[in-house]
Amino acid sequence: MLARTLLKTTAVRGIALRCRSAVWARSVLRPSVGRTCGYATHAAHLTADTYPTLVRDARYKKLGEEDIAFFRGILSEQEILQAGEGEDLALYNEDWMRKYRGQSKLVLRPKSTQQVAAIIRYCNEQRLAVVPQGGNTGLVGGSVPVFDEIVLSLAQLNKVRDFDPVSGILKCDAGVILENADSYLMERGYLFPLDLGAKGSCHVGGLVATNAGGLRLLRYGSLHGSVLGLEVVLPNGEVLNSMDALRKDNTGFDLKQLFIGSEGTIGVITGVSILCPPRPTAFNVCFLALENYARVQEVFIKAKKELGEILSAFEFMDFNSQYIAGQHLKGVAHPFSEKYPFYVLIETAGSNKEHDDLKLEQFLEGAMEEGLVSDGALAQGETEVRNLWQWREMIPEASASEGGVYKYDVSLPLKDMHSLVDAVNERLTAQNLSDTEDASKPVVCALGYGHFGDGNLHLNVAVREYTKQVEAALEPFVYEFVASKHGSISAEHGLGFQKKNYISYSKSPQEIKMIKDIKHHYDPNAILNPYKYV
Amino acid sequence: MLARTLLKTTAVRGIALRCRSAVWARSVLRPSVGRTCGYATHAAHLTADTYPTLVRDARYKKLGEEDIAFFRGILSEQEILQAGEGEDLALYNEDWMRKYRGQSKLVLRPKSTQQVAAIIRYCNEQRLAVVPQGGNTGLVGGSVPVFDEIVLSLAQLNKVRDFDPVSGILKCDAGVILENADSYLMERGYLFPLDLGAKGSCHVGGLVATNAGGLRLLRYGSLHGSVLGLEVVLPNGEVLNSMDALRKDNTGFDLKQLFIGSEGTIGVITGVSILCPPRPTAFNVCFLALENYARVQEVFIKAKKELGEILSAFEFMDFNSQYIAGQHLKGVAHPFSEKYPFYVLIETAGSNKEHDDLKLEQFLEGAMEEGLVSDGALAQGETEVRNLWQWREMIPEASASEGGVYKYDVSLPLKDMHSLVDAVNERLTAQNLSDTEDASKPVVCALGYGHFGDGNLHLNVAVREYTKQVEAALEPFVYEFVASKHGSISAEHGLGFQKKNYISYSKSPQEIKMIKDIKHHYDPNAILNPYKYV
Repeated sequence: MLARTLLKTTAVRGIALRCRSAVWARSVLRPSVGRTCGYATHAAHLTADTYPTLVRDARYKKLGEEDIAFFRGILSEQEILQAGEGEDLALYNEDWMRKYRGQSKLVLRPKSTQQVAAIIRYCNEQRLAVVPQGGNTGLVGGSVPVFDEIVLSLAQLNKVRDFDPVSGILKCDAGVILENADSYLMERGYLFPLDLGAKGSCHVGGLVATNAGGLRLLRYGSLHGSVLGLEVVLPNGEVLNSMDALRKDNTGFDLKQLFIGSEGTIGVITGVSILCPPRPTAFNVCFLALENYARVQEVFIKAKKELGEILSAFEFMDFNSQYIAGQHLKGVAHPFSEKYPFYVLIETAGSNKEHDDLKLEQFLEGAMEEGLVSDGALAQGETEVRNLWQWREMIPEASASEGGVYKYDVSLPLKDMHSLVDAVNERLTAQNLSDTEDASKPVVCALGYGHFGDGNLHLNVAVREYTKQVEAALEPFVYEFVASKHGSISAEHGLGFQKKNYISYSKSPQEIKMIKDIKHHYDPNAILNPYKYV
Repeated sequence: MLARTLLKTTAVRGIALRCRSAVWARSVLRPSVGRTCGYATHAAHLTADTYPTLVRDARYKKLGEEDIAFFRGILSEQEILQAGEGEDLALYNEDWMRKYRGQSKLVLRPKSTQQVAAIIRYCNEQRLAVVPQGGNTGLVGGSVPVFDEIVLSLAQLNKVRDFDPVSGILKCDAGVILENADSYLMERGYLFPLDLGAKGSCHVGGLVATNAGGLRLLRYGSLHGSVLGLEVVLPNGEVLNSMDALRKDNTGFDLKQLFIGSEGTIGVITGVSILCPPRPTAFNVCFLALENYARVQEVFIKAKKELGEILSAFEFMDFNSQYIAGQHLKGVAHPFSEKYPFYVLIETAGSNKEHDDLKLEQFLEGAMEEGLVSDGALAQGETEVRNLWQWREMIPEASASEGGVYKYDVSLPLKDMHSLVDAVNERLTAQNLSDTEDASKPVVCALGYGHFGDGNLHLNVAVREYTKQVEAALEPFVYEFVASKHGSISAEHGLGFQKKNYISYSKSPQEIKMIKDIKHHYDPNAILNPYKYV
C-alpha cells in the first residue's frame, strides 16, 4: 500500500518534474538565516561574568590613547569604532546566538591587507590582544572578544579580485559575503562549492578560518581540497601570499592548509583563492519516510550508487526533529500524515533535467520495491522544493522555541550516528528530566538531524529552561559518548570558546601538544584570538 | 565537411555506444606502466658521481655492526637486506627512471607500525639517516638514497585494515599497491579516487607522501580533500594516529595535512584513511582535433558546463606529442589522418550509460556546429577506448625513444599553458639545437601534453642525446618562464632530489623559511630523507 502511495506520487508529479528550472538559486528557494532571526532577544551576559574563574591575561597591554593615535595614523575615522564615542559595539562584542559577550572598546575595520598587516604588527609589538572577526555567525563563540581584545573586522575587505571563467578559480577578499560571492558566480555559470544557512552574513574568509562544512560538502568536498590559495597576515605582521592559485603545486609543505580551520589563532586570512564548480542547471528534491535507522544507511548506499554524480544532499532527520518542527510550523502540513521514526531529504543537482528526473524516479521506484522506503514525496516546482526543505531547515530555530536549546555538532561513524540521540533521551528520561507533554519537566526532548553523508550529527536538546541538572546530565556524557565511538566533538562548528576545554575528547595528548606547538611557533606572544581553541 | 565527418562518426558509432560496459576497470583498458618498461636499461650513475660538489653530511653516523645487531633484535632475517650478503640492493638504490643511484648498504622491510617506530626511534638516537621508500616509482629521485642512508621499505605493510561500505572510507597500510587497493574497492562497488600510470607498483602511502595527482583529480579532487586520516611515525619514533577517519573534524589544526606532500621528510606514513567514491558503471571516451589553443579552452568550458558531473578526464596533447607517439607506435593508425595543432581526449564516467551517451553526443554535435572542433572520434567498445587512450598514454615512453628525454611537470594558468612549449621550441630552434628530421641535431622537439583541467602541463624535450648545450638552453629558462607566469615548477611530481635547488622559482623566501622551520621543528636531527626537498 505504501509503495503505491509513492508510485502514485511520482507518477502524478512526473509531468511537473520535467519543467526546466533554469537556475540553481538556493538563496531564492531557502530563506537565508542571518543574525536577525537569532534565537535569543535579550543581551548576552558578559562572558567574564558567566565564567568567573576565567581571568584576563595580564600579559596583554590595556588599550591606551597612544594606541588609538597609532591606529588613527593608518585608518580613516570611519574605520575606527570606539566605545563611548556614541558607538554601540554590541554587534561586535556579542555572538550570533547571544551566548557570549566581550568588552572590547575598539573595533578596527581596515580596507586593505596592508592596513591589516600594519595593525597586527603594531599589536604584536605592543602585546595588544586581537580578535579577527568575519560575519560573526559562528556557533562556538570564536569570533567575539572575551575581555577587552581589539576587534579586527574584515567586513570592509569585500572585493572580488579576479575570476577565471576557464578554470573556475575565484580570488576574493576575505570579507566578501558568501551570498555575494555565490551571486557573482551564478552570473558566470559557476557555483560557490559550499552553502550554509548563514550565507547572507558569513564571510568567505570566516568560512575558511572555521573550515565550514555545510550542505554541499557531500558533493564538492571539504575546503582543504577546494581552497587553492590564501593570503594571510601572520602574527608578526608579515603577509603570507599563496594567492597565485594553481590546482596543483607540489613544491614544499602545503602551508595554507594549517590556516584552514585555525579559527584566527595563527593568522588573519585576508584573501582566498578557491576552485568553483560549474553551476548545475537541474535540481530535484524528495523527502522520504523510513521505518528504522538501518534503512537510512541502506537508502544512502543505494542513492550513492544510483544517483552517484548528481547526488548533492542527503540530510536525515529523526521523528523528534519533525515533531519539534511541526510544533513550530503550526498549521503547515507535514509531507506525511503518518508518523515515522526517520526521514531523509535527498537533493540532486545535475546538468540535464530529464536525465536527473529519470534517475531519481528509477531510484525511488527501486527503493519502494525493495521495501527500503515507507513513503515518499517528490517536489514539483520551487514552492514544493521550499516546502520540503523547510522541514529540515527549520529544525534549529524550532529546537529553541520552547525556551532554549543545548546544541552539539558532532561527527560519528555512520553506524553509530543516531545511537547518541537515543542514549541522551534514555538518560534524560531515566533522570526524570524530560517529557514532550509535561511542561513541569525542563527538557522537551533530544532530537537528531544532520548531514548524513558526512557523518555529521546535530544533536539538539530542546528545553523549556536551562538548569544545572540538565547540564550535568548532558556534559560530559555527550563528549564521553562521542569519544567512546572515536567521533569528533566538533564536526564543523569548530572549538572557539565553547569547546576549548573539551578537545581532549577528540584529540590525544600528543596531538594537543603538536597543536599547541604550532600555535606557539606562529604566535609566540599569543596575541591572536586568546582564551580560545586550545 | 569536417562537421559531417564527426556527425557521421557519432551516428555510426551511436549504436555501439549503447552497449553497456559493466565495470570501469582502467587497469584492463590501459596498460599499467611499471618498472619493467623503464626508459633506460643501463644502470644509473652514482648520484654522488653525477653531483661531485655534493658531500655526505658528516652529522650522520656510518652504519656499524652494533646497528645491524639492533635491527636483528626487532626484525626477522627476511626483513633485513644487507649489501654484500648475496643481496643486490639495486632495486632500492636506483630510481625508476635510472637517473639516480644511492649507495645504501641496508634495506629494512618492517611488517608493522611498531617496528617502523622502533627503527625510526633508534635511527634518530643514533643519527642514522633514513630514506622511506614506497613503490619507488617517483620521477624526481625522492625515494632513493643519495649516499649511504638506510632504506626503509614499506612494501610489507600491505594490508587493507578496514572498509566501510556505507561511508566508502578505506583504511589501509601505507604499502598497499594502488592497483590492489582499487581492485579491492571494485569488488565492493567503489573506486580509489586517484589513478595513474604506475598503479601496478606505486603504494598508497607513497601517493600521499608525494600528494600525487594523476588522471582523476579533475573529478575527485586532491588528496588534501579525500585523505581523512593518517598514521605517521614521527622522527622521534612517536606514532601520530588520526586513523579514526571522520569526514568532518574541526578540533584543532588539521595536522595530517602537513604530511600530505611532505615526501618523507618529517614522518613516515604507515597508514592511510581515504574517502572513496562509488564506482561509475558507464564510461565513454572521445578524441577531438582542434585548430588552435583558444579552441582547447573553449571546448573545456563547454565540456565542464554540458558534461558537468560526468566529466572524468580532459587531457590535451599538442601536434608534436602525437608526432612522437606516431613514430613510436609505427603501424598503428592515428584517429585522424589529417594533422592538427591540438588534440583533446575527453572521458566521461557516470551511473547511466544511455544518459551519458546522449550528453556526450549532444555536446559533440554542439561543439561541431559552433566550429570549436575540427574532427572527432568516439570510442565504441573497450578496444577503441584502449586505442584512443594509448595516444595519450604512450607519449612519455615515446618521448624517450629517440635517445632520451628532459621532463618537466609544471602548473601554469590555463591561458599560458602551451606558451611554454612554444617558447622552448623557439629557443631550441634559434640555438640550432633542434630538428625533427635532421639526426645531427641533439633535440628532436619539445612537446606538451597533460591534465588540462588541472592546469598541469607535462613538457617533454625529446632528445637524441643528452648534451650540456641543450641543458643550458633549458635550465633555468623553463623555471624562469614558469615563475614569470606565477606557475609551479612541480605540479604533481614533487621536489625530491631533482628540484630541491629550484624551489625559489615557485616559493618566496618567506615561504621557504616557513617550510624549513617546519622541517626543523619535526626533524631536528634531519634524519629523514636528507639532501632533498628544501
